[in-house]
Amino acid sequence: MASDQSKVLSILEKPYEKPKGDVATGIEFPSDLAVTDRIAGRQPTSGAGVEIGKATFVRRGTAFSLFIESHRLAAKDLIDAFMRTDGLQALVELAARVKVLVNESLFVYAFSYVILHKKDLQNVRLPSLIEMFPNKFVPQEDIMKAQVEANRRDPDDTTPIIIEYGPEFSSTNIKPEHRVSYWREDYGINSHHWHWHLAYPAGFGDPPDRKGELFFYMHQQMLARYDMERLSVGLTRTEKLENWRIPVPDGYFSKLTVNNTSRAWGTRQDNSMLMDFKRQDLGLDPIDITDIEIWRSRLLDAIHQGYMIDRNGDKVPLSDDVTSGKRGIDILGDAFEADRRLSVNSLYYGDLHNLGHVVIAFTHDSDNAHKEDMGVMGDSSTAMRDPIFYRWHKFVDDVFQEYKLTQQPYSLEDLSLPNVVLDRVGVLSKDQADALSTGWTVREFEAFRGLDFNSRAPVNLRITHIDHAPFDYHLQVTNRLEAPKQVTVRIFLAPKFNVRGLEMSFMEQRLLWAEMDKFTVTLKPGTNHVVQSSSDSSITTSEEYTFRDLETGPQPGTSRREFNFCGCGWPQHVLLPRGTPGGMVFQLFVMVTDFEKDKVDQQGNTGRCANGVSFCGILDAKYPDSRPMGFPFDRRNPPQFQSAADFAEQLDNVNLHDITITFQASSLTK
Amino acid sequence: MASDQSKVLSILEKPYEKPKGDVATGIEFPSDLAVTDRIAGRQPTSGAGVEIGKATFVRRGTAFSLFIESHRLAAKDLIDAFMRTDGLQALVELAARVKVLVNESLFVYAFSYVILHKKDLQNVRLPSLIEMFPNKFVPQEDIMKAQVEANRRDPDDTTPIIIEYGPEFSSTNIKPEHRVSYWREDYGINSHHWHWHLAYPAGFGDPPDRKGELFFYMHQQMLARYDMERLSVGLTRTEKLENWRIPVPDGYFSKLTVNNTSRAWGTRQDNSMLMDFKRQDLGLDPIDITDIEIWRSRLLDAIHQGYMIDRNGDKVPLSDDVTSGKRGIDILGDAFEADRRLSVNSLYYGDLHNLGHVVIAFTHDSDNAHKEDMGVMGDSSTAMRDPIFYRWHKFVDDVFQEYKLTQQPYSLEDLSLPNVVLDRVGVLSKDQADALSTGWTVREFEAFRGLDFNSRAPVNLRITHIDHAPFDYHLQVTNRLEAPKQVTVRIFLAPKFNVRGLEMSFMEQRLLWAEMDKFTVTLKPGTNHVVQSSSDSSITTSEEYTFRDLETGPQPGTSRREFNFCGCGWPQHVLLPRGTPGGMVFQLFVMVTDFEKDKVDQQGNTGRCANGVSFCGILDAKYPDSRPMGFPFDRRNPPQFQSAADFAEQLDNVNLHDITITFQASSLTK
Repeated sequence: MASDQSKVLSILEKPYEKPKGDVATGIEFPSDLAVTDRIAGRQPTSGAGVEIGKATFVRRGTAFSLFIESHRLAAKDLIDAFMRTDGLQALVELAARVKVLVNESLFVYAFSYVILHKKDLQNVRLPSLIEMFPNKFVPQEDIMKAQVEANRRDPDDTTPIIIEYGPEFSSTNIKPEHRVSYWREDYGINSHHWHWHLAYPAGFGDPPDRKGELFFYMHQQMLARYDMERLSVGLTRTEKLENWRIPVPDGYFSKLTVNNTSRAWGTRQDNSMLMDFKRQDLGLDPIDITDIEIWRSRLLDAIHQGYMIDRNGDKVPLSDDVTSGKRGIDILGDAFEADRRLSVNSLYYGDLHNLGHVVIAFTHDSDNAHKEDMGVMGDSSTAMRDPIFYRWHKFVDDVFQEYKLTQQPYSLEDLSLPNVVLDRVGVLSKDQADALSTGWTVREFEAFRGLDFNSRAPVNLRITHIDHAPFDYHLQVTNRLEAPKQVTVRIFLAPKFNVRGLEMSFMEQRLLWAEMDKFTVTLKPGTNHVVQSSSDSSITTSEEYTFRDLETGPQPGTSRREFNFCGCGWPQHVLLPRGTPGGMVFQLFVMVTDFEKDKVDQQGNTGRCANGVSFCGILDAKYPDSRPMGFPFDRRNPPQFQSAADFAEQLDNVNLHDITITFQASSLTK
Repeated sequence: MASDQSKVLSILEKPYEKPKGDVATGIEFPSDLAVTDRIAGRQPTSGAGVEIGKATFVRRGTAFSLFIESHRLAAKDLIDAFMRTDGLQALVELAARVKVLVNESLFVYAFSYVILHKKDLQNVRLPSLIEMFPNKFVPQEDIMKAQVEANRRDPDDTTPIIIEYGPEFSSTNIKPEHRVSYWREDYGINSHHWHWHLAYPAGFGDPPDRKGELFFYMHQQMLARYDMERLSVGLTRTEKLENWRIPVPDGYFSKLTVNNTSRAWGTRQDNSMLMDFKRQDLGLDPIDITDIEIWRSRLLDAIHQGYMIDRNGDKVPLSDDVTSGKRGIDILGDAFEADRRLSVNSLYYGDLHNLGHVVIAFTHDSDNAHKEDMGVMGDSSTAMRDPIFYRWHKFVDDVFQEYKLTQQPYSLEDLSLPNVVLDRVGVLSKDQADALSTGWTVREFEAFRGLDFNSRAPVNLRITHIDHAPFDYHLQVTNRLEAPKQVTVRIFLAPKFNVRGLEMSFMEQRLLWAEMDKFTVTLKPGTNHVVQSSSDSSITTSEEYTFRDLETGPQPGTSRREFNFCGCGWPQHVLLPRGTPGGMVFQLFVMVTDFEKDKVDQQGNTGRCANGVSFCGILDAKYPDSRPMGFPFDRRNPPQFQSAADFAEQLDNVNLHDITITFQASSLTK
């Protein structure tokens, strides 16, 4: 009898094929008709007797996009069908039945959603997205070389076929913009983004706590990290994409494919114009650039007037409501992303963020004249590869910041913590104080789990990617009270100098502060030495599970943290910015605040999916920090603090400390 | 003991693999090193002990372009090595040895060239290019679906896997320009173009007779045919691409791949700008748009001054030299295409036609920032799929026409033939007079000959393409002389009406006249009834040989014509323009001229490769018509003839006759 975990794995392995083995026992598979449809790429004509609503709207073999409402509705219908099943066996039987009927990416998304959310499946884990869809991570040319090698081999030769790739592959050094390709094309960053949109879908599921605000904050933090990376390689900070009537300098050619039949992602040439979108094949109404401009105007109207207008014409203030717990930023975020259920007025405020992705994804063939599929901006697992992702989200963030800048700066009371003094902070790595290092490392995945090869030899991916040597934060904190005191420790990192080599004012540096960790600690009276490992960061998750990890089960010594892995969370290996070969100076900003003020009722928190909580929240529980996300950098500075240094000088509970990050331009020594 | 033919086939089958079977016996294959290089896509480090010069310059797996001089020189070196071998066995042994070392398309090109030109291989024929490189004809997605099907199948299932495609696949009907996609993406047209550039390479081989003029004429005739096709579907005639500083409205996304590893051809979005070319990876100096503009100016200077300037600064008149037989149009054509050996001054006149192809082929990634390979305009077997091919060649033709318009109009003596009266002309098809029909038909090829599948089942292509019902020309000619008279019959076709529905003047219609046939006939004194079959056209070739055809050998009843097939020649199935569902009116222009004046010494004509001679000439012999190609439409009209009708009315040896062509929008009934 196969375990629940192995049944789930056999559903997710080989996304293009009928499930095999245990789960298939006794299952009546779809008729040959459906299989024929699949091969011909046609819309299935029947749901094999199963009610899956509009789930077949997205054609097999084509791209699936959460940014397109018709696709979201297809996902919702499939998720609803899965959620209605009673127990794991019924779920996998249904999944096995519909697997060959619905779009492959849609299927994996919906099935994964259900694994996370169905209460009776808490012990089941998801395997890595990279193994399910290698084609979304590895250049098609490399996959095909492996296929050709498999075809030519002696069938009895079972030595693994290795596909090597990374740290980047789609561009050269000719354009400065491509210096950060290794980061944009990192497998972990793209996998995280997919998982985030799995945890926070727009338009269906129970809305998680502070969904709108987290949409803002998680993307803002990714931008802060991207800008740190850019500074490391001598690039200017990301410019927002706000003028949609002039050519976009940077194009993108992903070299990846949508599915197992080499269907290419759409590409975008340098200096392309965004075009009015009119493709009936996607079940979307036309979107003019003018529509997007109007939605932007209306959102800015709301921000500068302080209220939105609902369907009845009534005002909905963009302020925090203490009774309902709803915050102004959530109202704005829900209308902006947009989530049609949660938007105060989706007809009026539109669907700006999502449809921006769509317009950009179809720059190259906005009217379907050329039968091209969408570009990588259409898929949450590939969008972060494209330089335009950051420019688009910089625009999105800029609108949120317009709102944030209308908020009162924090008061001294908000910022200070009487009787607690943060005496010293620093980091320690490989016995070196305040000197961290990054470099290249290698990770292997089993590509054959998601490939359509007919080979007895396993096909593995060997990915070269950025990583860092592990380190610990060391804090010396004095508690002047007589009693123990529970505090929240907030750790941020930002470059000390701007691209011109000058120290930055609070406002210049404000959006560069990347959250590194946030944790609760109880301070005994007197001096405390607090040590926190980099691997326990509140933003990161442990490395992804492979199929093999899940087949063999938890190894002895598996930490609760690893067990809790649900996929969402910033990859541990990109926790640090790259730095420079000569060593780049960063500032560590550490602040302790009163846990009494920060704490949130944690009812519902089973500890599951409680990694990377600062970026991902906690499944079925409230976001565990009452402060606005990004505190204390989410607002304009109080007038008495003109720089981060002023905070540290004037507040006992804040400390600022220089560290260097050195990039070893070779394999990382840990 | 395998036949010569089968040895050649085993070299050409599976272009990506080591040759198998008979030819491989006793051959020492390249070391594992070279094979490893191949898999890694690296430049081979050794020529396996064989002197093949610069042949390895073009990397395996990348696109090979005759328009790039470094690629032509690579081809030349490989051809030279092949030509130095003594006998077929030595040739195939060398070919087997270098096959896995050099670029696949380069290899097939060079080996094919040698098969055509080596005197001792006259009985060997080339198989269809479609079977050698299905990926240059069939969308990658369809090939991969077949691969996936092959992978999933019971290995013992040998039912053929069928890939259906055509008549077009890369676009929709949204843009009017795509109405002629079925024609641009016709397999035969693209195969012809590859064969033409095999017969008429620039820069190496013995220059064929009237090479420069045929470069002009063959391309002009393709444009005439394209414009007829455009009129059939309600499009205006092709606009020349002459302003290279404004966006090009029509893009192209081929859906095809360069090779067996899914490497995509470059694409071009609508409204792209041509860009200055600077890619060191291709061994080409930078090409600015300014360079192309300057070369154009210099060619026009020569045309309007009547002479070119050679390397010594001496004048080379652009006139026909009776002693040397060199014609002005040849001098112009050789400098324009350009052929560096034949150009009077390649430094001054540049390489306009070839490098125009290159600049256009790299519009999407002119500086290699995105590691993209060239677009289909770079490869002679794919270029005609792209709408821009015709706009570029319309510019090329326009420059040639500038020259042609400087020539004296033909005199009455040039045009007339005393004592011969062309009384009546017409066509007969399916017992219907003057009513021809076109429609869709289906042809199968064996794709597995060129695919890297590991499948016991054959993979076949089933191509839907345009075709016509066969027909005969009927001529009634009176010879008023007492003795037999040998005449040349010249048959042209053009639309009777322009896109506004009006009859055309001579000059408006002039470049629309498509040569349909040209043949010699001896008229007995008195009335003659001449019948000529459409299948014997002087521009067409018989259908291509498949591997299977060549394996089984000539069937009983094989005509000399079929036996003569060498690949070059307009495809028989696109001899006629499509016409319209309601019937479109065309004019048949038939002229008889004096064979005494037309004839050319045919020394060297073995009859081999003597199909499609009007477009392809004759291998190792002179072009068999002394008149300027395109006569009598290649020059301005004589003042007394304002239209084609004036010719027919005033000249006894000319006849003009209306016919209709009806397009059956379903399967063709023959």
